[in-house]
Parts: sequence; structure tokens; C-alpha cells
Amino acid sequence: MSLLDTETKTSIEKLLTYPANTAGSLMTTEFVSVPSSWTIEQTLQHVRVVERTRETIYAIYVLDPHRKTLQQVVTLRRLIAGEPQASILSVARNAITTTPLADGEDVARLISKYDLLAIPVVDEKAHVLGIVTVDDIIDAIIEEGTEDVQKFGGMAAIDEPYMQIGFGKMLYKRGGWLSVLFVSEMLTASAMQYFQSELEKAVVLTLFIPLIMSSGGNSGSQATSLLIRSLALRELRLGDWRHVILRELPTGLTLGAILGIIGVVRIAVWQNFGFYDYGEHWMLVAATVAVALVGIVTFGAISGSMLPFILKRVGFDPASASAPFVATLVDVTGLVIYFSVALVILKGTLL
Amino acid sequence: MSLLDTETKTSIEKLLTYPANTAGSLMTTEFVSVPSSWTIEQTLQHVRVVERTRETIYAIYVLDPHRKTLQQVVTLRRLIAGEPQASILSVARNAITTTPLADGEDVARLISKYDLLAIPVVDEKAHVLGIVTVDDIIDAIIEEGTEDVQKFGGMAAIDEPYMQIGFGKMLYKRGGWLSVLFVSEMLTASAMQYFQSELEKAVVLTLFIPLIMSSGGNSGSQATSLLIRSLALRELRLGDWRHVILRELPTGLTLGAILGIIGVVRIAVWQNFGFYDYGEHWMLVAATVAVALVGIVTFGAISGSMLPFILKRVGFDPASASAPFVATLVDVTGLVIYFSVALVILKGTLL
Repeated sequence: MSLLDTETKTSIEKLLTYPANTAGSLMTTEFVSVPSSWTIEQTLQHVRVVERTRETIYAIYVLDPHRKTLQQVVTLRRLIAGEPQASILSVARNAITTTPLADGEDVARLISKYDLLAIPVVDEKAHVLGIVTVDDIIDAIIEEGTEDVQKFGGMAAIDEPYMQIGFGKMLYKRGGWLSVLFVSEMLTASAMQYFQSELEKAVVLTLFIPLIMSSGGNSGSQATSLLIRSLALRELRLGDWRHVILRELPTGLTLGAILGIIGVVRIAVWQNFGFYDYGEHWMLVAATVAVALVGIVTFGAISGSMLPFILKRVGFDPASASAPFVATLVDVTGLVIYFSVALVILKGTLL
Repeated sequence: MSLLDTETKTSIEKLLTYPANTAGSLMTTEFVSVPSSWTIEQTLQHVRVVERTRETIYAIYVLDPHRKTLQQVVTLRRLIAGEPQASILSVARNAITTTPLADGEDVARLISKYDLLAIPVVDEKAHVLGIVTVDDIIDAIIEEGTEDVQKFGGMAAIDEPYMQIGFGKMLYKRGGWLSVLFVSEMLTASAMQYFQSELEKAVVLTLFIPLIMSSGGNSGSQATSLLIRSLALRELRLGDWRHVILRELPTGLTLGAILGIIGVVRIAVWQNFGFYDYGEHWMLVAATVAVALVGIVTFGAISGSMLPFILKRVGFDPASASAPFVATLVDVTGLVIYFSVALVILKGTLL
């Protein structure tokens, strides 16, 4: 097995060079492999000898005796159930394999789908570089889940427990995105400045700005969280974006209409029960709020659902999309939609 | 093994009654158990016979011959490495166990921590009810991850792929939370009405409302995502909330100060380069924005980090806290902070 040992050494060196969370970075080189010319008895004997030095012996890789390429795989349970004198190939089957640069989540999906205990990582010539075992993949999935939630929360992922991370590092991980979002959100101030004469004429409009803007952000945040996971789980592919728009459009319009109705009811109740006076044109104000809500919630749903596709298209992880990022994106457009609707509906009365 | 079969039947009936995502609902009753009086040879023989009818044979549970309670566990790799005539107990070791109502994520953590391929689920009398295998737990973790991201995005978790869920169900899962958030956010309109005279006197204040409010929401969203995961991974316990406040207070103050400085610079640049005229008291307006930002970002960090603790304390899943929920919570308070700061700083000039 001297050739294997040389390969192992090379593999260990390579291990250190694979990007984080790829099959190559998660794999171990401590696996069992035997030539396909062996019998079950010989293999079992070998397994007993090397058992202590291998991370797992539950999957044994059967190699071509000459080219050392992966031929098949035998699970330990099939091995002990087989006839001792039979060829190892009598209990072997074709192997599900992966490549060193495969994404950790994709490897997890393969392991889960085929109920594997380990998956061999092979190069283009079918040499086994290492194996990813099921317990390593569990750690990787849990870590990935943590990173995804943190990124979705609008910060850089941290890889240390909350109480252990230093104050400076914590500031760096949170302050970076917070500043980027703040600077982007400054566009809302510019949008408001642009509509300043409308603001001065109809102060009543400002009352609903936070309400309307946040609804767009919430609608977008929902759509983004849905699509991030659908893309991560490979339920959807990049080319499916058209189908998604066709679903988000009616969904957004309906959700916007529901909120619009709630908004109109609220304004009507406050006006007619004397809680607040929105002025003589309160019905037009209510109509402005309702129409703007339909537009903004729909825009939120569409842009929130497209963001993960766009990120994936330009080569980023779709999970980089965050709720605050979507909210910021929708806020500026939301203001423009709101004031544009107001200009149309309130022209000649308030504006 | 007739007694085992009776137990198996009972277990299968019980399986259907355990709540979703508990060890009881994830377990299988197809495991291998042998009496502790057997030898390794006898056990191997038995394993070969029953192999085809068991979900896993990689962990074999050693039971007390009379009381049928769990004594120890043997892995298949230790079994095949052992002396055939020796007692099964010579290769067995104490078992890590779990209970039927244990949370799926806790089971995953145990399996991951001890590198297990399966974990036995035992009742209070140490009878094995079933086992949770590593591949079932992977599915559970991935599903849980999807639900957590969706809930954090502000919607009810859906258990079907995006393109397969019906239109009505999609509306229900999203519209429910969206309406609740909308109704809560109506408090912002009430807050604005309360400060209406200030709004009319100083329209310039309205320009920064979206900017300031969104920063509080973003800060809160970051803190919530951090703490949800820390609690889920058991890095922090319920009693640690005081330590968290002591970390979030300086973090929030510093992050708020950073954004405050950016805000002041922006206002000063726009004012002095003639992009916009904030009036003769522009420096006081800038000071109002900066002080309000420090207050709101700090409030966001504190309330965002405490929300998962509060949810856990009252018996909810901390992962029910969502970015839109935190943003809504912070929005109303943010407005009150902003106008209160304005009343103090701008008294006698603009207000």
C-alpha cells in the first residue's frame, strides 16, 4: 500500500489549500481502501488491522489494482453479511462521489439523499483524495446555519461564541454592514428632500411614512428568506427566476391589498370616531396610503425574491442577502412610490 | 427475542404520538439489540441474520438479559476487531442516550459532539424505545435551518418547496405576520400624530426619519440574529442575559457614535457645498440626528439582543424572533427618542 501512502501525503498537503466549506477542506485522508482483486475475508482481515488508524471503516473503497482508481464501494454491513471466500466485488456497488471543490451543503445533500456514512472525494482521474464523513458534515451544516442567520441579520458572520469574541472584532463585524446600510439609506433623505414642497403642503402624508416603508421592507424580507433557502436546497435553479416573478407578482398584489384595506379601515375609524382629524380630504389620503401599500408591498416581494437570484448570478452566495439590505433597497423606492401616488391622487386638493 | 418484538410494536404506536422534531418523532425502532450474556461471535452471527431488516447495524445495544434495560453499546467496528469468544461486554462501552422529548437540535449536538452514528432513545426505566440515526438527524437539521431562516425573515415556516406550495397557503403563511407587523407599526403613525406640532414647525426633521429608524432596526436585527444562534447552540443560557446587556451597551453606544459621525459629516457636506439648505440651525439639526442615532442604535442592540431571551423565558422558541419584528419594536421607540432629543436640542430655535 506504499502508493496509497504517497497519495495520502500529497492529499494532506492539498487539504490545507482548499477553500473553507468545500469537500476538500472537510475531508479526511484516513479511510480504508483495498484492491478489487481481494476476497471478503482478506478485506475483513485488513480492516481489523488498520481499524484503529482510520476515521471510519464503515465504507471501504475498492480500487483498481493497477491504476489505483476508484472502482466501487463496500459498506461494512454488506461486508460482514457476505461469503468470506467471495470476491470483494460481489458485495460492492457503484460509489456516489464528489469533487474537492464541491460546496459543503451540496455534499451534505448527497450524504443525506443516499443515506451515506461517508462520501469519497475524487479527482478528475478517479483517484480518491479523501472522504467526508457524516459527522464532519453535521458540524459543517450547523456552522453554515449560524453564518446564514447572522448574514441574514445584516452582519458579517462570526466564527466564535458570542461571549468570547473581542470587542473590536464585534464592532468590525457589525459596524461594517451597519455603516454601508446607513450610507445607502441616506438616499431616503435625498428622496425626501426632493419631495420637500409636497411634504410642507401635506404634513399629513409624513404620518404614514414609517408604516408604509416598513411594510415594503417586511414583504421583501419574507420573500428573500424564502428564496435564499429554496436556492440553497436546490429546489430552484437560476433559470427559474421568471417562474418566481410570476408567483411573487400576484402574491405581492394580494398581500398589499390586504394591508391597504387594514390601512383604510384604520384611517376611517380614527377619522369618524374623532381620534384624529386627517382633514377634509381624509378619504383621498386613505386612498393614497392604500394604493401606495399595494405598490410597495409588491415591489418588496419582487425585489426581495430577485435579490438572491441576482447575487447568485454575479457569483455571490445568495445567503449574503440580508433583511436590512432588502429593507434599505425597498425604503428608497418606497418613498418614491408613495409620493408619486400622492401626486396623482392628491393633485388639486392637498398638493 | 419475542419480548423485543412486543416492545417494538408498542414503540411504533408511540412514535406517532411524539411532537414534531423531538427525538421520539425522529427515531426508528429498527435497531439491533443483544443480551449482555452473549459472546462477540454470537452477536456477529445475529447481526448477519437480522442485517437486512434493520435501519442500522453500526451500533448494537447490549441489554440486561432479564430486565431488558440498556446496559452498554458496541459499535460494529469494535465488534469485528474483538476476539470471537470474548464476552460482548469486553468491547462495549457506556452509551450516550437521549429521551423521547429531547429537541432535535440537541440530539444533533450530542451526535456531533460524540461522533455517533446513532443515539438510543430511552425511557425513564432505561428501556430502549428506538434510535435516532445520523442521516435522519441531517434531514432534521436542514429542515430546521430552513424554518429558522423563514421565521427570521418574518413569516410562518413552510414545509413545502417554493414552487409547490399553493397560492392560498402562501398568502396565509406570509399575510398573517405581515398584518400583525402592519397593525403594530401603526403605532408609528400615532407617535407621529403626537409630535405633529413639532413636525409642522420643523419639516427638516422629517427628512431623517427613515434614516434614523432603519438604523435602529438594523442594529436590532444584527443583535437578534447573533443571540438566536448563541441560544440555539447552547453557547449562552437564559441566566446570561445580564452579561449580554453589559456587552451590547458599549457595542450599541460605539456603533451609534460611528453612524452619528457619518450623519454629521453628511449634513455638514451637503450644507457647506450647497447641495441642500438645512436652515440657519443646521448644526443643531446635525447634533439632533447624531444624538438620536446613538440612542436608537443602542436601544436596537439592547432590545434586539433581549428579545430571544424573553421569548425563551416565556416558553417560545427564541428563533421565533424575526428581523421585521425587531424593526417594528424599535421603530416606535425610535421615533419617540428622535423627537425627544429634538425637543431638548432645538427648544428655543426651531421648536
